Amino acid sequence: MSYTEIDGNVIAPNGFSASGGHCGVKDGDTPDLVLIHSETLASAAATLTTNQFRAAPTYVTERTVANGRAQTIVANSGNANCATGAEGMENAIHMGRVAADAIGVSPADVIVCSTGGIGHQLPIERIDAGIKDLSGKLGEVDAELIARSIMTTDTYPKAVSIEFDLGDAKARMGGIAKGAGMIHPNMATMLAFITTDVAIAPELLRYALRDAVQVSFNCISVDGDQSTNDTCAVLANGASGAPIIDNECDPRFNDFCDALTHCLTDLAKKIAFDGEGSTKKVTINVTGAELWEDAHIIGRHMANYTLLKVAYYTGDFNWGRIAASSGAAGVPVDPNTITIYFCGTKCFEAGEPVAHDEAAGRKRLTEDEIEVTVDLGMGSESCTVWTCDYTPGYLDANAVEEL
Amino acid sequence: MSYTEIDGNVIAPNGFSASGGHCGVKDGDTPDLVLIHSETLASAAATLTTNQFRAAPTYVTERTVANGRAQTIVANSGNANCATGAEGMENAIHMGRVAADAIGVSPADVIVCSTGGIGHQLPIERIDAGIKDLSGKLGEVDAELIARSIMTTDTYPKAVSIEFDLGDAKARMGGIAKGAGMIHPNMATMLAFITTDVAIAPELLRYALRDAVQVSFNCISVDGDQSTNDTCAVLANGASGAPIIDNECDPRFNDFCDALTHCLTDLAKKIAFDGEGSTKKVTINVTGAELWEDAHIIGRHMANYTLLKVAYYTGDFNWGRIAASSGAAGVPVDPNTITIYFCGTKCFEAGEPVAHDEAAGRKRLTEDEIEVTVDLGMGSESCTVWTCDYTPGYLDANAVEEL
Repeated sequence: MSYTEIDGNVIAPNGFSASGGHCGVKDGDTPDLVLIHSETLASAAATLTTNQFRAAPTYVTERTVANGRAQTIVANSGNANCATGAEGMENAIHMGRVAADAIGVSPADVIVCSTGGIGHQLPIERIDAGIKDLSGKLGEVDAELIARSIMTTDTYPKAVSIEFDLGDAKARMGGIAKGAGMIHPNMATMLAFITTDVAIAPELLRYALRDAVQVSFNCISVDGDQSTNDTCAVLANGASGAPIIDNECDPRFNDFCDALTHCLTDLAKKIAFDGEGSTKKVTINVTGAELWEDAHIIGRHMANYTLLKVAYYTGDFNWGRIAASSGAAGVPVDPNTITIYFCGTKCFEAGEPVAHDEAAGRKRLTEDEIEVTVDLGMGSESCTVWTCDYTPGYLDANAVEEL
Repeated sequence: MSYTEIDGNVIAPNGFSASGGHCGVKDGDTPDLVLIHSETLASAAATLTTNQFRAAPTYVTERTVANGRAQTIVANSGNANCATGAEGMENAIHMGRVAADAIGVSPADVIVCSTGGIGHQLPIERIDAGIKDLSGKLGEVDAELIARSIMTTDTYPKAVSIEFDLGDAKARMGGIAKGAGMIHPNMATMLAFITTDVAIAPELLRYALRDAVQVSFNCISVDGDQSTNDTCAVLANGASGAPIIDNECDPRFNDFCDALTHCLTDLAKKIAFDGEGSTKKVTINVTGAELWEDAHIIGRHMANYTLLKVAYYTGDFNWGRIAASSGAAGVPVDPNTITIYFCGTKCFEAGEPVAHDEAAGRKRLTEDEIEVTVDLGMGSESCTVWTCDYTPGYLDANAVEEL
């Protein structure tokens, strides 16, 4: 499938509006609040963190999308509203109600998200005032401001928007995300919001989202730390005018899934490559697996292997760390069938080290983009995982709690 | 039980001798080879890495201890002999044969270990010459040199030796280890060798070692990276003269297990606290678990949680990271029953954050020793895990491959 890149991220699809700005969770005038709204009730789905120390808003969002419908998203950055007890839960519910009242939708159709430091109560009065203010600005067309309003220590806003053919019609999809990994260091949150004007039945949207998340957000890691607030929510409002997709045998369902995977993967890579302090974009390919799940487990393990992440940064062409990490994931592998490539250089094959030009390898490690490939030699399944390097900047970024 | 600390590490027990020195695996005159020898065939057991990319010598050691007997240990530092193919396997077998011939024991009774960089062939001729040289110096009494000969980037030698009552007799146990974690960063190896003059049946020695390793070496982590060479081997030669322990109902068996756990825990903590670049000694207590295994999984997960390790270093009193890490281990926990203490300060209880003196907490984080306690509030089992902080020194230590 081919996609035409367009402007506008979440407001690119028909029938969506949004607004973002500063309400006072963060210092200064940094944007810290966003509203995203569909003019009609939309099919909705969300995937949430599996961390058992979940933030209060994830419970609200879970309840909102339970019936497969939602209309509005309200999200703040600068405070995760996690480990905040009964008051935190009341505040999360309250945020949804205030947004619903201000915009004129049902509180049961509002998705609520927070991202930032753990263990602090929200400045709920400022958020109240901010929501009321933003609700009057929903026609706002500054898409970048919307993406910026959910940022914490991200160094750049993360957004995507595309137009694509769906059957005989044109459809659009857009999204924003903030990082920077399974957990956002210091902030403890990854958020992604996707809008589309495709009409699709809620249960199919749920399947599509689950599958797309598995090969995108579940294939990135910055530090291996799982967040308390991870949320990826999608709203599909049907405003494109094309007939609804309500049967998984409809060939347009596959096209929709592909478009969703395209957008999520785009955002996921932007998160992975913007890990705190990162200087390298790392792609890890695990091929030749019997099962995709095996390749996924090994790829994720390698993405979190500290010594490898350090090698990308220090420029140590130490392929032995690739060998060690591939054998430590708890998945059966056979060193006699494994082939290891580091920056395109074959280093190990059929149980034996392969002679190679060490200096050339070291030089390729100085490039911005690094590729690691491990062919397990056991089957035909493969998985790609994206990550970044570990640098002193990661330590600097976590020197004190910034909200 | 009480233990009297004595000098001599592995040569403190009766009937053991050892020698260590430089043979040329490492540059300069840094010690890189060690022999440890029992005057009689000893009961023997070893635990080995579960990394599937195992080093060649681990296969030799596995075969040696399969019958529960061994007499001699030969180990080099500076090269892991891992991912070295057929030549590496021949070299590992060869090292054992050369040691056996030089000392006059059976090759089937020699434990072989290596530690260092992965993917390089051993300088086998230098090792040959070194073994022959060291075999003539087995009466050597410089115990510290022996401990130093297995070091890689360890900043201090790790050793222990004790005398204790075993029934009516006195018994001795000694050990040396090198670090610094599940993997030794850059070097990919943790090694520990224990000697004792207790007489004990091989199968009981195996049980005792398995249990002692579980609560000592399996309760430390530096970086979460599992080594290709981890080996903990114990020789028990019976030279104390006390009757053999050959029944697990013999009350002396418990005493022996306690002594072994004492020595292994002592060495394990020394490894954990000497992680590359570390500046803090961190103890993590997980209490109130239904099962020890649950507490162990959560404790290990917390020990590897990057943001926590960074907080110890940067002095960020961010207890929210403790909450997040305890919920992400994949073990059922209930935030409503969890109590979190950071440096002795209660921060979270019964689902609610607990007001506390943030400045006092930050001050306690500046101390050398840091304690984290999470009471799950679900049962009576507990596990303690030891680790260290992440610092720029870790990155420096891995800037280039040093052997």
